[in-house]
Amino acid sequence: MPDPDAPDIRPSEFDRLGEDVPLLEGIRTTRAIRRLRPDPVPREVIRKVCEAGTFAPSGGNRQPWRFIAVTDPERRQWVADRYRPRFHAYIAPAQERASEDPEFPEARRRMQRAAIHLADHLHEAPVHLFVAAYTRGGKPQLQAAMPCIQNVLLACRAVGLGASLTTLHTGFGEECDRWLGLPDNCPSCALIPIGWPIGKYGRPPRRPLS
Amino acid sequence: MPDPDAPDIRPSEFDRLGEDVPLLEGIRTTRAIRRLRPDPVPREVIRKVCEAGTFAPSGGNRQPWRFIAVTDPERRQWVADRYRPRFHAYIAPAQERASEDPEFPEARRRMQRAAIHLADHLHEAPVHLFVAAYTRGGKPQLQAAMPCIQNVLLACRAVGLGASLTTLHTGFGEECDRWLGLPDNCPSCALIPIGWPIGKYGRPPRRPLS
Repeated sequence: MPDPDAPDIRPSEFDRLGEDVPLLEGIRTTRAIRRLRPDPVPREVIRKVCEAGTFAPSGGNRQPWRFIAVTDPERRQWVADRYRPRFHAYIAPAQERASEDPEFPEARRRMQRAAIHLADHLHEAPVHLFVAAYTRGGKPQLQAAMPCIQNVLLACRAVGLGASLTTLHTGFGEECDRWLGLPDNCPSCALIPIGWPIGKYGRPPRRPLS
Repeated sequence: MPDPDAPDIRPSEFDRLGEDVPLLEGIRTTRAIRRLRPDPVPREVIRKVCEAGTFAPSGGNRQPWRFIAVTDPERRQWVADRYRPRFHAYIAPAQERASEDPEFPEARRRMQRAAIHLADHLHEAPVHLFVAAYTRGGKPQLQAAMPCIQNVLLACRAVGLGASLTTLHTGFGEECDRWLGLPDNCPSCALIPIGWPIGKYGRPPRRPLS
């Protein structure tokens, strides 16, 4: 359906990547993937998943999001060095509960182990994708940024990339946003570490709808 | 992939509905659809799109959302009667700009007309789906609710339903939440009017990624 306002997509070898994955199956099998291979991700594939983000709805179609993909190894190290201690401080109480309580659910133990793995290997994740949101009335427009981020996560699933969502970097948010060159009215609200997965996709555990 | 924690999906005639729509194409062609036919939507289809919502990520996999589908005509009238005046108060300034400014973009005029149509016909939309989010630290967990809502909108696209997202009902949020029987710690954060579309799907206008 031609649309004069639609973005200009250049044909490339990556155009067909992931296009066959069904929507509903993709939704049901998108889960946080926190064990990532260090192999690089082509720029075109990163563009593709970010572009999917831009199709999220936003009030007045303002599209108040901004994407920053950090791929340089030294810059990823900078992020990882600041993320790691904050993550460990965050997870410590739950880790203690897990070690003291034999009834602590195995699914949560697995999640903890994966999250710890990610924090300890964050510098190796080939892409640190930051999504920032312009403020409105002084607050970042999360109502638009979060659906945009969900589209990015689903698109990663489609093209076969592993990804997960963290907001713990906001613990050093101001320093990070200055370092990323973001203006004051557009703070980063999510960090999405992306890479080719070590694990596999599968249906994540959910409570029944009712 | 069998998962002991996975919800129990009963086989039904609706199981295959929408399963063939591709993920990335679905993301690119999901847009607000505000002109809806009054024909009823089978309960199983509503369940299906809500279930897609439950696959969104949430901190600690807390799944802090709740769905309330209002389908009774008198109850939809109750919602519509309260929504309409608030919507018109909200849109009035933009409507004035549109009528005074010949340069006002045609795409925005179309969006205004569709939103006005929805407000004036809200009682006819066969499903008023409210998504509520449990609070944490006193605030509804929008970081989880918004991706959940995006999944619902995408699932509507997959099964062929028209839907759009509005938060203007929060203008009578407390009254509405009491009426819906929601507890104080789980306010509704979105109203998604759903129905079979009068219009067609297509790629919505977006600025280029860069």
